[in-house]
Amino acid sequence: MSQDTALGQDTALGQDTLDRLLIFSGNAHPRLAHEIAHYLGLELGPATATKFSNDNISAHLGVSVRSRHVFIVQPLSPPCSDHLMELLLMLDVARGAGARSVHAVIPYFSYARSDKKDAPRISIAARLVADLLVTAGATHVVAMTLHSPQVHGFFSVPADHLTAHSVFVDYLNGQDLSNAVIVSPDIGHSKRTANLARALGLPLAAADKVRQSDDSVVMSGFMGQVRGKWAIIVDDEIASGASTVATTDLLRRENVSRVTVMVTHGLFTGPAVERLNAVKEIDEIVVTNTVPLPPERRPERLKVLSVAHIFGEVIRHHVLGESIGALFEFWPTG
Amino acid sequence: MSQDTALGQDTALGQDTLDRLLIFSGNAHPRLAHEIAHYLGLELGPATATKFSNDNISAHLGVSVRSRHVFIVQPLSPPCSDHLMELLLMLDVARGAGARSVHAVIPYFSYARSDKKDAPRISIAARLVADLLVTAGATHVVAMTLHSPQVHGFFSVPADHLTAHSVFVDYLNGQDLSNAVIVSPDIGHSKRTANLARALGLPLAAADKVRQSDDSVVMSGFMGQVRGKWAIIVDDEIASGASTVATTDLLRRENVSRVTVMVTHGLFTGPAVERLNAVKEIDEIVVTNTVPLPPERRPERLKVLSVAHIFGEVIRHHVLGESIGALFEFWPTG
Amino acid sequence: MSQDTALGQDTALGQDTLDRLLIFSGNAHPRLAHEIAHYLGLELGPATATKFSNDNISAHLGVSVRSRHVFIVQPLSPPCSDHLMELLLMLDVARGAGARSVHAVIPYFSYARSDKKDAPRISIAARLVADLLVTAGATHVVAMTLHSPQVHGFFSVPADHLTAHSVFVDYLNGQDLSNAVIVSPDIGHSKRTANLARALGLPLAAADKVRQSDDSVVMSGFMGQVRGKWAIIVDDEIASGASTVATTDLLRRENVSRVTVMVTHGLFTGPAVERLNAVKEIDEIVVTNTVPLPPERRPERLKVLSVAHIFGEVIRHHVLGESIGALFEFWPTG
Amino acid sequence: MSQDTALGQDTALGQDTLDRLLIFSGNAHPRLAHEIAHYLGLELGPATATKFSNDNISAHLGVSVRSRHVFIVQPLSPPCSDHLMELLLMLDVARGAGARSVHAVIPYFSYARSDKKDAPRISIAARLVADLLVTAGATHVVAMTLHSPQVHGFFSVPADHLTAHSVFVDYLNGQDLSNAVIVSPDIGHSKRTANLARALGLPLAAADKVRQSDDSVVMSGFMGQVRGKWAIIVDDEIASGASTVATTDLLRRENVSRVTVMVTHGLFTGPAVERLNAVKEIDEIVVTNTVPLPPERRPERLKVLSVAHIFGEVIRHHVLGESIGALFEFWPTG
Amino acid sequence: MSQDTALGQDTALGQDTLDRLLIFSGNAHPRLAHEIAHYLGLELGPATATKFSNDNISAHLGVSVRSRHVFIVQPLSPPCSDHLMELLLMLDVARGAGARSVHAVIPYFSYARSDKKDAPRISIAARLVADLLVTAGATHVVAMTLHSPQVHGFFSVPADHLTAHSVFVDYLNGQDLSNAVIVSPDIGHSKRTANLARALGLPLAAADKVRQSDDSVVMSGFMGQVRGKWAIIVDDEIASGASTVATTDLLRRENVSRVTVMVTHGLFTGPAVERLNAVKEIDEIVVTNTVPLPPERRPERLKVLSVAHIFGEVIRHHVLGESIGALFEFWPTG
Amino acid sequence: MSQDTALGQDTALGQDTLDRLLIFSGNAHPRLAHEIAHYLGLELGPATATKFSNDNISAHLGVSVRSRHVFIVQPLSPPCSDHLMELLLMLDVARGAGARSVHAVIPYFSYARSDKKDAPRISIAARLVADLLVTAGATHVVAMTLHSPQVHGFFSVPADHLTAHSVFVDYLNGQDLSNAVIVSPDIGHSKRTANLARALGLPLAAADKVRQSDDSVVMSGFMGQVRGKWAIIVDDEIASGASTVATTDLLRRENVSRVTVMVTHGLFTGPAVERLNAVKEIDEIVVTNTVPLPPERRPERLKVLSVAHIFGEVIRHHVLGESIGALFEFWPTG
Repeated sequence: MSQDTALGQDTALGQDTLDRLLIFSGNAHPRLAHEIAHYLGLELGPATATKFSNDNISAHLGVSVRSRHVFIVQPLSPPCSDHLMELLLMLDVARGAGARSVHAVIPYFSYARSDKKDAPRISIAARLVADLLVTAGATHVVAMTLHSPQVHGFFSVPADHLTAHSVFVDYLNGQDLSNAVIVSPDIGHSKRTANLARALGLPLAAADKVRQSDDSVVMSGFMGQVRGKWAIIVDDEIASGASTVATTDLLRRENVSRVTVMVTHGLFTGPAVERLNAVKEIDEIVVTNTVPLPPERRPERLKVLSVAHIFGEVIRHHVLGESIGALFEFWPTG
Repeated sequence: MSQDTALGQDTALGQDTLDRLLIFSGNAHPRLAHEIAHYLGLELGPATATKFSNDNISAHLGVSVRSRHVFIVQPLSPPCSDHLMELLLMLDVARGAGARSVHAVIPYFSYARSDKKDAPRISIAARLVADLLVTAGATHVVAMTLHSPQVHGFFSVPADHLTAHSVFVDYLNGQDLSNAVIVSPDIGHSKRTANLARALGLPLAAADKVRQSDDSVVMSGFMGQVRGKWAIIVDDEIASGASTVATTDLLRRENVSRVTVMVTHGLFTGPAVERLNAVKEIDEIVVTNTVPLPPERRPERLKVLSVAHIFGEVIRHHVLGESIGALFEFWPTG
Repeated sequence: MSQDTALGQDTALGQDTLDRLLIFSGNAHPRLAHEIAHYLGLELGPATATKFSNDNISAHLGVSVRSRHVFIVQPLSPPCSDHLMELLLMLDVARGAGARSVHAVIPYFSYARSDKKDAPRISIAARLVADLLVTAGATHVVAMTLHSPQVHGFFSVPADHLTAHSVFVDYLNGQDLSNAVIVSPDIGHSKRTANLARALGLPLAAADKVRQSDDSVVMSGFMGQVRGKWAIIVDDEIASGASTVATTDLLRRENVSRVTVMVTHGLFTGPAVERLNAVKEIDEIVVTNTVPLPPERRPERLKVLSVAHIFGEVIRHHVLGESIGALFEFWPTG
Repeated sequence: MSQDTALGQDTALGQDTLDRLLIFSGNAHPRLAHEIAHYLGLELGPATATKFSNDNISAHLGVSVRSRHVFIVQPLSPPCSDHLMELLLMLDVARGAGARSVHAVIPYFSYARSDKKDAPRISIAARLVADLLVTAGATHVVAMTLHSPQVHGFFSVPADHLTAHSVFVDYLNGQDLSNAVIVSPDIGHSKRTANLARALGLPLAAADKVRQSDDSVVMSGFMGQVRGKWAIIVDDEIASGASTVATTDLLRRENVSRVTVMVTHGLFTGPAVERLNAVKEIDEIVVTNTVPLPPERRPERLKVLSVAHIFGEVIRHHVLGESIGALFEFWPTG
Repeated sequence: MSQDTALGQDTALGQDTLDRLLIFSGNAHPRLAHEIAHYLGLELGPATATKFSNDNISAHLGVSVRSRHVFIVQPLSPPCSDHLMELLLMLDVARGAGARSVHAVIPYFSYARSDKKDAPRISIAARLVADLLVTAGATHVVAMTLHSPQVHGFFSVPADHLTAHSVFVDYLNGQDLSNAVIVSPDIGHSKRTANLARALGLPLAAADKVRQSDDSVVMSGFMGQVRGKWAIIVDDEIASGASTVATTDLLRRENVSRVTVMVTHGLFTGPAVERLNAVKEIDEIVVTNTVPLPPERRPERLKVLSVAHIFGEVIRHHVLGESIGALFEFWPTG
Repeated sequence: MSQDTALGQDTALGQDTLDRLLIFSGNAHPRLAHEIAHYLGLELGPATATKFSNDNISAHLGVSVRSRHVFIVQPLSPPCSDHLMELLLMLDVARGAGARSVHAVIPYFSYARSDKKDAPRISIAARLVADLLVTAGATHVVAMTLHSPQVHGFFSVPADHLTAHSVFVDYLNGQDLSNAVIVSPDIGHSKRTANLARALGLPLAAADKVRQSDDSVVMSGFMGQVRGKWAIIVDDEIASGASTVATTDLLRRENVSRVTVMVTHGLFTGPAVERLNAVKEIDEIVVTNTVPLPPERRPERLKVLSVAHIFGEVIRHHVLGESIGALFEFWPTG
């Protein structure tokens, strides 16, 4: 069932509730923050994060937050360090000014990919960032489609792990899926892909990806039947596009009829736009709006689906104290 | 290269180092603890964990631990809650008695399977247990083959995540692997399996497991070529055996020539022994000694490989301050 | 004055208050939890704590707890470690799901007996368990008749220490006490006994107990006049019954006319039922329902008094923000 | 066996060890601190705690403490708040200046009497003070004869609870004890007294003390045989003397032949000296030197036993990493 | 604009709000606490802090604080250590009794002068005291005119730093300031003085103070024009008066026409009254009532301005959740 | 006395000590890190901090740090957020890999300027960054010339606050200072300037700076005699140069003969180089090497003094456990 239908037209909050709630945006993605606030019938609270001449960031909230539920919307999109620092400073200001609760709404929690030890003496950055958020005053964290579900456990405060699953299901359900196969570009991260395949009643295939460097990927094998099919590559994130292109190369050898790419977080950094534009088999790249997409970072054939209503619902339900299990990313026991 | 060769014959520690080090065992697996201590040329320290008539556990360490590096060996094998409580109490005693550092050596960290949200309002028990260990005084944790590598990030103190990889590679390397294929019973957890396949130069296959309940598993699909081959099923743990039997059922339909099961943690609880004994295709079940295996929980055709030397090396290297990267489970970036 | 009278018939909460409150039970004592909820006009919230095939416990709360005051009722009765682990997991779930406050209601806090160092390098388990509860998310703890009043100070969060004093006073007040004497089986823990003697206007006697082991007690002396009297032995807990039987042996030599045993926590573990049934001088054993009493652990001549209303009042007053000093166990300065 | 004999003449530390160790004193009891240092062959480190004109205290350590084990000796004798603040500031300085470990040696931990709730909304000051010490940087606490053994559990860092037991046993063992009885002035705190009676092979008696106010005590009853005997009253502390005088009044009615008072902490505050001098039955008051005793606070017939060697041994053994169980106050299970 | 005008006559709170709020006073300054409560239409809550015969302080709150916002008013005036300890105990009681929030209102935070390292191994006492307050349970701190604005950052909980600026501006605005100059006695702390000069449109002068000891000050130079003018010396605190007298000596040499002293915290300890009375050039000493001023510590020509309404407003606005930026001490970027 | 003379030629550490010590550099200022290591006879440890294609930073230490004292050198120079994030990740890696102690050496702690509330709901960023460093694992922090000395108190771990005072004194002492005056550009921060004036026996002058924005400063007044003199402007940092230029403008009106600028941290960001080059009165700009100075950020007439030996001494003395008071920035009581 469509998320839109489920939520209906009556999503704006009552005045009493509005009075208890404030939504702010850092500099990362004010448009998404605005959409979320608008969904709830709110304006964004006035906030500024600026740089001093010595490159230090300073944050300021323009209205009193005393005894309010404060939500700060900030995906950790590039420049990541600046956006993280802005978020930490805004959380700290809200805590210090007596907010009743302080919520870090992080549509794209980029550090989630650094979730384990790949080598000795390498940081598990996702855990560190989770701890920094709590140090800065976050009493609750909201994120979407973390690289692995275990990252949820890195947070020592309550965390909501949302999924864009319903948005993708809605989008595909309107299409003829009779020849489609869901393709995971990484056998080690195919559980989420399998969930989508199951929801749509589609078969599943997976590549055995070996990442040689951050920007260089080799596919050492392939499992499942894709020959002649419409391959829908599903992943959590596109950054440089290396993994997507490598998967498409592999699929090309299998003579697939058509390739669609469907990822939650579309960053398209570095050579990604050029790379993806060069792969003619890809007929559509579907992403959500968890990160801002300026014109120069938009590949051709791009479709952007909004997830603002999902974040809006989490905030609405949080303030009203209702259950919000339906919006979360849960994982069948493996 | 074999771990045994690497470590050589000179594994016992010098007297100076022995004086700084104490190894204790809870009631879970004294034999493994003894093997680890013996590897280092030590005796286990005297310790008791007993129950009062009201079923409370009391722990006592029989020698002074002041200014010593204290290692407490305790896999969280059944009865899990009692073994966890024993461990927590022993850690607390060591901390309170002025130990210089307190190490929880947990060869089988059972709660690692509860590493994510499977449903709303379900605990991520692995994170809670990690926090309880720190509350009780652990300054360092050593575990082997956690269900997912991200569990490493649940610990707020330094943690070493060891692997039995070298022991399995050594065991298989002496055999004719020309017709073998490595089989992962769960596409969502096949990264570790892929590592073993790569190390042995073997192809990989994976099942798309859907767990219907803790003790009931359905395989909804299969990826990769196994027909007529020697299927080596690799997994982190066997408890009730449901997953192993379901995978074997699927393999049987593919007419595999032979099935070997290779898991780190062999618990064989409930109906496991009976179930596994009934599957005649399985020619060998290879496990390590991370959990105790009393006669009644040993299936037929069982082979147990010792990992005591791996834990011994970690302790040795920890006390000597040397690098121990080679023993760890690291995960190629995915 | 009777507690029952004080509370009157109007103990059920109003709807507004009910909406802010949820009571759950672990597996230890659902009947008591139900009685407490019933006293307040509530149903227990749906919750499950189950075991996986590897003996790990998993906890689940069946309704949203967001912004609610959550009370989890779980005495630490045998099997203690499992019941403690269930409680910790349920607290953790409630915290992680955004409960407004999380209350551990522990009618029998068994670890309270391990409240001091009896030997070098022995854990003060009561302090450790107090810390584990806070780590798991408890923001408030409610317990009844702790072994020593100082255990109250082990909690770093607010704790209510309740007493069954009023229930025992009510029970005895209806009887002819002219020949009665209150007997403490342990001179080192006779302050609580003295309070009851004073409330009833009765004389006091005490034995100098020397515990040789958990299950073996020697009485080395006796202070006070008991000859020919009705001896009412008052203690906090009966587990194996060794202490009660030893005290009765001593009293028999003093030719007491009759013996009544009155304890808050009646566990009756191991040989307790058989032992107590064999002591014919005991005409009645009065306990409360802080721990579950299955038929096989009920000695003859048993009388069970309910304390559900006391826990109900604490919850009621906590949610309504009223003072509840009258229900607590306070201790005259010594 | 005598503590003095056990420790022998060779108590001074070697130069290597001395180099790792620094002992400082606050203003409370420099003489005891000096005795402790002297026992170990050390001089006290230079330290000052002074008051500014606005009555603020400032603390300064006169030598580098970097990487040293720092012991700060300060009983919480009157003026308590100033002495506590001095101690907290000195701990904080030592921590901030890079000490390897910071030990609060508190021969008289006065707040230990506030160890439980005597009324609603009364602080458990002993727990608060324990937490303040840890906040200020204490990594280890040493105290002697706490009012109740459970106070040990209030400390979240390792704590050593010492006893003057051996000093009292030595002192009495040289005397004719054939007619002696050990008397506890409070049946609720007679466990420690019972231990001394047992060590000396003497009978035990106890009063049922009811404290009406801090300075007014009524004895409501008496248990045990004292008539015509030499009554040795044993307690942890004398402050105003009210309790001691009330016990003596009770004993006088029993025609005891002689009264000796034996307490660890002799404060003799307010009217204590006058009161005790007026009770002619008391032939000796034996205290230790845990608190300073200026001439005006010394009653007649006073005997002061030194416990400096016990603190010296704890420090010595702590720095050398040896077991020190024999010096501790342990409590037989009750 | 005058603070009085801004606040108007309608400062008493409504009944609903009163019900959520409790104000207590320690022994330091009950009169100010009463004025603050009175301003809000409240009575002070009943509380006692008393001393035991062993000089320990015990605190008690006389009404239930469960779910209330609790404000405890206590300047750290002499005797500082006792007043701090009272405050810590009262905070701890409020936290332990289930207060919803616990506010330490410290009109004079004396330790603020120890805000940096003046020498090696000297404590930054202000930071330690800030941490002790949080350990004891403070969730919010209110202070006025800290010695340096950075002390604000020492608090790990929200802190409000109030200023008496408006009170001083109001007082001076009614006078002929045509010949006045604002004088800072310390060039290193002249930012606050400069703010007052700017607000009144007056010129600024400053002395280069060198403090030789706590009670001895030398002025090594002077900057700015004061000759023949009305010198208004502005400072945060007068304790012994040494600094004020030294500044006046310097001004006398410049033939100033008149001297007024204007400080927030008037302690007048030790020789201050005598010293100040001897300086005839001083025509008025203006202080606020942040500390109690018994007759013997009042110099001649003293004027006391009340700041009760400023504290009242902070409490009012805090409970009502309104913005209170106007009352705070903010500092132009330097 | 010169720092160089004091330290002499024998600054390299012995082999034993070298073995306990590792120095790493982030990407901010490897040259300074190398100089510090070289001073001690060490090579920098191998470390990398790189960016993923999604702009996330990953840090890696190339050798084992187990049981070592690890020093990480990283000034928070622009790009500040990236350099801070690198530092946090490297600290976290060192902690997680079992380092014995983890030292953040931050020659330029840029956030120190955000040390107080300039407006309501503005973050005290210096305190937040101090807390982030501790969260990431720093057990000790070393910084130089913080904007205000109170920032020292923001750290909850030991912190060393170094000064370049000796380097500046040495540099000026070789010159003819007969006509010189030390000028503070901000009367509110002139204590440090006054210290330098006193050390050199020079007079002091100060401007009353009013900062209108980060990059726009107005001088509202001036105190002290500068006419015809050699004005040596002393400050902690130059960023955009606005403050320096405004001070020089003011000095020009006083007909000073010559202007020298002397600051610890020379950032020269934005228009600084152009601005400063345009002010012909400035005959020299003296800075230290706490931040890297690429050619394009070097104004004319620049003189760079090295402070590597000061950091080297702190490390040396820290590892050897000696007192290092002489290197610190201490502040006379004001």
